[in-house]
Amino acid sequence: MGTLTLNITMSLDGFVAGPDQTLAQPLGAGGERLHEWIYGLATWRERHGESGGETNADDAVLAESLAATGAVIMGRRMFSGGAGVWDNDANAGGWWGDEPPFGVPVFILTHHPREPVVFADGTTFNFVTDGIEAALEEARAAAEEKNVSIAGGASVAQQYLRAGLVDELDIHLAPVLLGGGVRLFDDLGDALPALEVMRVIESRAVTHIRYRVLR
Amino acid sequence: MGTLTLNITMSLDGFVAGPDQTLAQPLGAGGERLHEWIYGLATWRERHGESGGETNADDAVLAESLAATGAVIMGRRMFSGGAGVWDNDANAGGWWGDEPPFGVPVFILTHHPREPVVFADGTTFNFVTDGIEAALEEARAAAEEKNVSIAGGASVAQQYLRAGLVDELDIHLAPVLLGGGVRLFDDLGDALPALEVMRVIESRAVTHIRYRVLR
Repeated sequence: MGTLTLNITMSLDGFVAGPDQTLAQPLGAGGERLHEWIYGLATWRERHGESGGETNADDAVLAESLAATGAVIMGRRMFSGGAGVWDNDANAGGWWGDEPPFGVPVFILTHHPREPVVFADGTTFNFVTDGIEAALEEARAAAEEKNVSIAGGASVAQQYLRAGLVDELDIHLAPVLLGGGVRLFDDLGDALPALEVMRVIESRAVTHIRYRVLR
Repeated sequence: MGTLTLNITMSLDGFVAGPDQTLAQPLGAGGERLHEWIYGLATWRERHGESGGETNADDAVLAESLAATGAVIMGRRMFSGGAGVWDNDANAGGWWGDEPPFGVPVFILTHHPREPVVFADGTTFNFVTDGIEAALEEARAAAEEKNVSIAGGASVAQQYLRAGLVDELDIHLAPVLLGGGVRLFDDLGDALPALEVMRVIESRAVTHIRYRVLR
């Protein structure tokens, strides 16, 4: 069985989205700066049907992560980018559009049942209404021997951390200060995991740090 | 002229001290875990008159930093560990005791004038009552060509960041979640600096990331 990995980009001041999240600005003010490291990478571009792009240390990290990941778990807001898109059946892929880049089954935590949505590249959007453990069980079955990746947002990450289910954190630490927004590690209460550094990969754009959760 | 470097250990969730700071617990609950990476190092032990210790990547970072630093700036609380110690003239070195480990002039921001305190190893404690720019000017003069290091706490760091005076951040990112306490990057308002990664040094104990402040 693969690991359950929280795989997320965080600002140096601890945010995974900026302040003032809206439908037009689902990552909050300045939040898109967190992800600037990824858009120009060859692997990212390939996933979006484009050629070219950077083949650097960041690209290797992304390619490795995608190859190791057999299923993805995300929250409803990360899927839909806001209630307005969610309610629009014409936009089956939510915020991710007609060609979502996952290539594996995605399990979306929601309170509203909905039929799965299947895309040509292997991405499927599956809507799970009976909680994080059920979603994990479905994701593990879909991933077979590969890892299950928690893509966000913070609330979903915190639910899995509080439940003690996360094996590893792949934190992509962006050299960005947002000054406000959604904190990754809020609301953990007494469920603060003990961590061990597994590896660090340096680049100019972002610092990739993998932590093991100690049990 | 050397750089003005914020040199500080921060938890992965952004804290430089834990919650519930008291005189008996000046780093707050769990705050001592931030600094575990340093106590066993050969360079740290040597500064405290002890032999032996680790000579690993962390030790090299510490030795390099000490060699490059010509003066240190810190806040009153970091100096004294609390008002009770500060008021006790018998304890001239504040929380740092009779043998503080700096070896260079230290400039302490305070509202209360006090005569300098001189130690045999080259550490001097100098009390600056006319603000951060005056303290920096004095520290730069004392440091000559070397760097001036802001050692903390968070409030002093934030004052220098807001004033746009910081050149580099040496963040020692501890694989620790504190869940509460004193955040390094709070209260920066609209003075959020743009950062660039200069270098990353990996170890099992802590991740050393140096950022340049872009102007």
